[in-house]
Amino acid sequence: MRAIVLHGTGPTALQLEELPEPEPKPHEVLVQLEHASLNFRDLVVIVGGYGAQMAMPSVPCSDGAGTVRRVGSEVTRFAPGDKVMTTFFQRWPAGVPTAHALSSSLGGPLEGTLRERACFPEEGLVRIPSHMTTRQAATLPCAAVTAWNALTVLDHVGPSHTVLVQGTGGVSLFALQLSKLLGARVIATSSSDEKLARVKALGADETINYVRDPEWGKAAKALTGGRGVDHIVEVGGAGTLAQSLRAAAPGACISLIGVLSGAKQAIHLPHVFLPQVRLQGVVVGSRQTAEDLARALSHHRLEPVIDPQTFLLADAPAAFEHLQAQRHVGKVVIDIGQAS
Amino acid sequence: MRAIVLHGTGPTALQLEELPEPEPKPHEVLVQLEHASLNFRDLVVIVGGYGAQMAMPSVPCSDGAGTVRRVGSEVTRFAPGDKVMTTFFQRWPAGVPTAHALSSSLGGPLEGTLRERACFPEEGLVRIPSHMTTRQAATLPCAAVTAWNALTVLDHVGPSHTVLVQGTGGVSLFALQLSKLLGARVIATSSSDEKLARVKALGADETINYVRDPEWGKAAKALTGGRGVDHIVEVGGAGTLAQSLRAAAPGACISLIGVLSGAKQAIHLPHVFLPQVRLQGVVVGSRQTAEDLARALSHHRLEPVIDPQTFLLADAPAAFEHLQAQRHVGKVVIDIGQAS
Amino acid sequence: MRAIVLHGTGPTALQLEELPEPEPKPHEVLVQLEHASLNFRDLVVIVGGYGAQMAMPSVPCSDGAGTVRRVGSEVTRFAPGDKVMTTFFQRWPAGVPTAHALSSSLGGPLEGTLRERACFPEEGLVRIPSHMTTRQAATLPCAAVTAWNALTVLDHVGPSHTVLVQGTGGVSLFALQLSKLLGARVIATSSSDEKLARVKALGADETINYVRDPEWGKAAKALTGGRGVDHIVEVGGAGTLAQSLRAAAPGACISLIGVLSGAKQAIHLPHVFLPQVRLQGVVVGSRQTAEDLARALSHHRLEPVIDPQTFLLADAPAAFEHLQAQRHVGKVVIDIGQAS
Amino acid sequence: MRAIVLHGTGPTALQLEELPEPEPKPHEVLVQLEHASLNFRDLVVIVGGYGAQMAMPSVPCSDGAGTVRRVGSEVTRFAPGDKVMTTFFQRWPAGVPTAHALSSSLGGPLEGTLRERACFPEEGLVRIPSHMTTRQAATLPCAAVTAWNALTVLDHVGPSHTVLVQGTGGVSLFALQLSKLLGARVIATSSSDEKLARVKALGADETINYVRDPEWGKAAKALTGGRGVDHIVEVGGAGTLAQSLRAAAPGACISLIGVLSGAKQAIHLPHVFLPQVRLQGVVVGSRQTAEDLARALSHHRLEPVIDPQTFLLADAPAAFEHLQAQRHVGKVVIDIGQAS
Repeated sequence: MRAIVLHGTGPTALQLEELPEPEPKPHEVLVQLEHASLNFRDLVVIVGGYGAQMAMPSVPCSDGAGTVRRVGSEVTRFAPGDKVMTTFFQRWPAGVPTAHALSSSLGGPLEGTLRERACFPEEGLVRIPSHMTTRQAATLPCAAVTAWNALTVLDHVGPSHTVLVQGTGGVSLFALQLSKLLGARVIATSSSDEKLARVKALGADETINYVRDPEWGKAAKALTGGRGVDHIVEVGGAGTLAQSLRAAAPGACISLIGVLSGAKQAIHLPHVFLPQVRLQGVVVGSRQTAEDLARALSHHRLEPVIDPQTFLLADAPAAFEHLQAQRHVGKVVIDIGQAS
Repeated sequence: MRAIVLHGTGPTALQLEELPEPEPKPHEVLVQLEHASLNFRDLVVIVGGYGAQMAMPSVPCSDGAGTVRRVGSEVTRFAPGDKVMTTFFQRWPAGVPTAHALSSSLGGPLEGTLRERACFPEEGLVRIPSHMTTRQAATLPCAAVTAWNALTVLDHVGPSHTVLVQGTGGVSLFALQLSKLLGARVIATSSSDEKLARVKALGADETINYVRDPEWGKAAKALTGGRGVDHIVEVGGAGTLAQSLRAAAPGACISLIGVLSGAKQAIHLPHVFLPQVRLQGVVVGSRQTAEDLARALSHHRLEPVIDPQTFLLADAPAAFEHLQAQRHVGKVVIDIGQAS
Repeated sequence: MRAIVLHGTGPTALQLEELPEPEPKPHEVLVQLEHASLNFRDLVVIVGGYGAQMAMPSVPCSDGAGTVRRVGSEVTRFAPGDKVMTTFFQRWPAGVPTAHALSSSLGGPLEGTLRERACFPEEGLVRIPSHMTTRQAATLPCAAVTAWNALTVLDHVGPSHTVLVQGTGGVSLFALQLSKLLGARVIATSSSDEKLARVKALGADETINYVRDPEWGKAAKALTGGRGVDHIVEVGGAGTLAQSLRAAAPGACISLIGVLSGAKQAIHLPHVFLPQVRLQGVVVGSRQTAEDLARALSHHRLEPVIDPQTFLLADAPAAFEHLQAQRHVGKVVIDIGQAS
Repeated sequence: MRAIVLHGTGPTALQLEELPEPEPKPHEVLVQLEHASLNFRDLVVIVGGYGAQMAMPSVPCSDGAGTVRRVGSEVTRFAPGDKVMTTFFQRWPAGVPTAHALSSSLGGPLEGTLRERACFPEEGLVRIPSHMTTRQAATLPCAAVTAWNALTVLDHVGPSHTVLVQGTGGVSLFALQLSKLLGARVIATSSSDEKLARVKALGADETINYVRDPEWGKAAKALTGGRGVDHIVEVGGAGTLAQSLRAAAPGACISLIGVLSGAKQAIHLPHVFLPQVRLQGVVVGSRQTAEDLARALSHHRLEPVIDPQTFLLADAPAAFEHLQAQRHVGKVVIDIGQAS
């Protein structure tokens, strides 16, 4: 069985190797992984950003989808032929996360999805949305679940709300699309008018070019008639949090997701407590959250945005370089291959 | 100033009279009421259903919309010319209802909206949605706020949920339209295929004719693939609650709203506690709920369904008879007249 | 290995038998069950109340506690020697219940706890509170988790609230004790002054003898200065729900739990929707709820109320007759025996 | 009527003056203010920290309690003789705060409580807890409501939780006392062993001297057996937020309240999003929150901690200097005087 294995630091340390075939234990499911998708977090893992937390050699990536091949004797929720996707955390079924749940992420510390076949406990898999291909579903486990968790579990965004999303990364585009399903009004920011045209086509009600308008927080607030934005999906970048706080309505929720450029930000505390704003950390989400998302996506037949560049399993280093260069729009997918 | 005044029991006890002009106190707003709309509760008041709770003579109806004429010296939220609608409870600004709030409903015990001009505390009014006429806005205070409260305050309906609505009354049609704004899938029931065609046109995903299928609870559950309905807007009728409980998913919310045919229902308790279902009483909603609704309606430019039959203030008895005969679809509106 | 096995209907159909020793699968834990406790639901099972849902022969009872003997190769959360208790549902880790979760209860359909040793998936066990014996912990899985779920998950009872509990059954006494931990004021009802003295000793702030005062709903409301009771733990009985609705404050939660006398109740709908009351079905609770409860009990070193009468495993029929006769106060425990 | 009026910057700019007697409008209540209490925010106002936001001359302070003298013609909730306390925001009745609500604070921009008599809209007053003197109740409007809002409205603290409070200021001591009412375990930090003995006497389960143990976040986490603290009442100070993030359990809530030493803090974002922590701004609370608090305090007959030093109205400058020097423990009260 072929797999991509990390032996050092950086995309060039990824090697295509032959690994032994996995055997499902009684409560496990053997999945033929047909596609994987990359997240910024996978890049941080590859370049050593998590340090000694990651054992080596190891298989990277958390997002995968494919077809159930075989199930262990105790498995009740899946059968051979079922189309499934992974959950980022293998031991977070529902509710509030525990340390036990948070230490069960795929692609580090657990072995990831860049391999042809893998066994997962049945509790760590979700049926894909009925209208999607496994290629589309492979984009969901990390980015879409994160956006859904932020908007519907940790907050309750709806038609009376305005949501602000930043840029055109995976989480931001899902946050835009899902906010529209939820009935919200969406303001999108980007550095490029071309990308803003793209998010407008995806449903953004208003757009702001933050290069032309560095005080975009003020501009966003003006677009709400002075009331402020109700939910901001903050994906980071130097100084963005300060602008997000300016844009926020009283009682607003600012979702803190990932770190694109630097892990530290200074917050001006009165801008948080005076309007009773909430800065809400978001760490992907539980399996129940992923299942709810899948149902919502099926009902609306939503299509994920996938970057047009294609990569085979052997191209994994090139795929990571593509992500690193930020040339992509939407999710970068690796095609592992169909079952032979 | 002309007004409709109730002097006894039933629509025929309504008389068109001349009342003294109202004068706003410092914290009050004088409104030119241009339109009112009828709710089933107004009929219950008229026919004596609330008994001695209602002083007589009194002006009926809780829903009204119009234009601010004059404001008291302490008023800060409104100015002459503003288009406003009433709130059902004049003293329920936000949060959980109190006995104080619940005793402040218009159209009994407080004087209602079937009059040309009236004073309200500024806390008892809401700006109408920006895209609506005052005629449209006059349909919102009771029925639309009730549906919005049920779906978004007392529950959190969204794109992963299925909602069931019953019939084509005011609350049910708003519940259907608002559920679609919220991204939910909607199943609608009715006794008539003609009405089902109507709700389909308004966005219902699935319909059930409950005359042809008296076991509609089972049918509704089947339409969800056996999972069950997440939210049921139960507007009453003999035996409907038993079917609603059959349709319900584990953890579902059944909103109990008003009483169309008989105030008592038997509930089979294991159908409530075994799947951890919630029967949630809904009593219109607070002013903050009405304001959130208005913002959502503006964003989506939603059009309320108004019964085509028109009535002037003097026609109030006929309007009530029209409602009583249940010949209407959507809200019955009374046109009080523009300011001269 | 000895076990109690049901071969027909009623306590006399329970037989002490020898069963084969269980062997843990990779994700399972072998537990030496030292004590079990009885719930009213176990009696319903024994007398055939669940009908064909229960396979026969089968081992009854859902509540048990004991010591981990051995763990499967994949088990990470437990080690031999750990003191553990069962969860009522073996597949409800957290969050909202699913049909999959609700079909995993011990003592039917799954084999129950009246046996010396049993294997459970590690997901179906919880560490016992640190200050408790396994005898005490055996009282918690059904009754205490139900009360905790009702008060803290499905509602948020606290020091500004009044809680009403009915009688001296297992759930009611835990509801009383837990409400006191939560800082609430507690009103307890019973048919006997002797039992009322007992609940007063356990912390009840106020008591009502419902035989002397059949209109106890009104009396309870008066005890709150007319505001009403915020949370009522409704354990059933003919007509209790009507009184509970009279006692309820606007916005109150009435937890519907089990069925002591008859499964049907008529509800007067205006008493539900006018004060926006919630009738909330409660079906035990998730493992995360049980874990939170265990932590709360440890912190407060709470002692469960255990009926003084003792029963060995072979006495199971007598124990069930004791429960059926309602001669008990608090939980009826069966001592299965320590490991030899 | 005597009042303290601010004419410039700092405690020395406070002058005792004679102001005209206030007259209640129809919806207003005339209150004889008998006591006021100081908050750190009042000091920030006095020293010019809010800049041009504050008109001058003006009467400072937001906390006051006293006796109703007279009520306007429209007032329904109060009568002469009632004992009442102020609400910090005069126009935040309940629910989520709005800009309109947040601009209605006493002691700037609205005239404050350092005066013998004042008129308030009836919506801006709350009945004091039944067991308290007006002197005790004057300590509640800002500090106690803030702590209650943080613990029970913006979070749901209970007996399964651990709460961490910092120092011996007004909010922190109320947070400690209220956390105990809620059944939580409390860890308190301070720079002084003497103060730690004091908080221990008030109910703290564990204490940490942060001078001896600057890595107190790690120490606090160890005191929870490694699980982490569930709710941290963060009152500020350089670097405290970094330690709070270290102490936090997955899913924890860190309440951000006020600013003792510097308004900017750097946050290490991965410490927020990886364990899905929430940084929750808290801005006092609504009137409904204050009313719930009053009911809870009455039930438990809780006694606020009042600094032993006494001040008359004319001593206001000295009272502010006492607060500024941080020599106090608990609330600093100014005795305005009883009605003559």
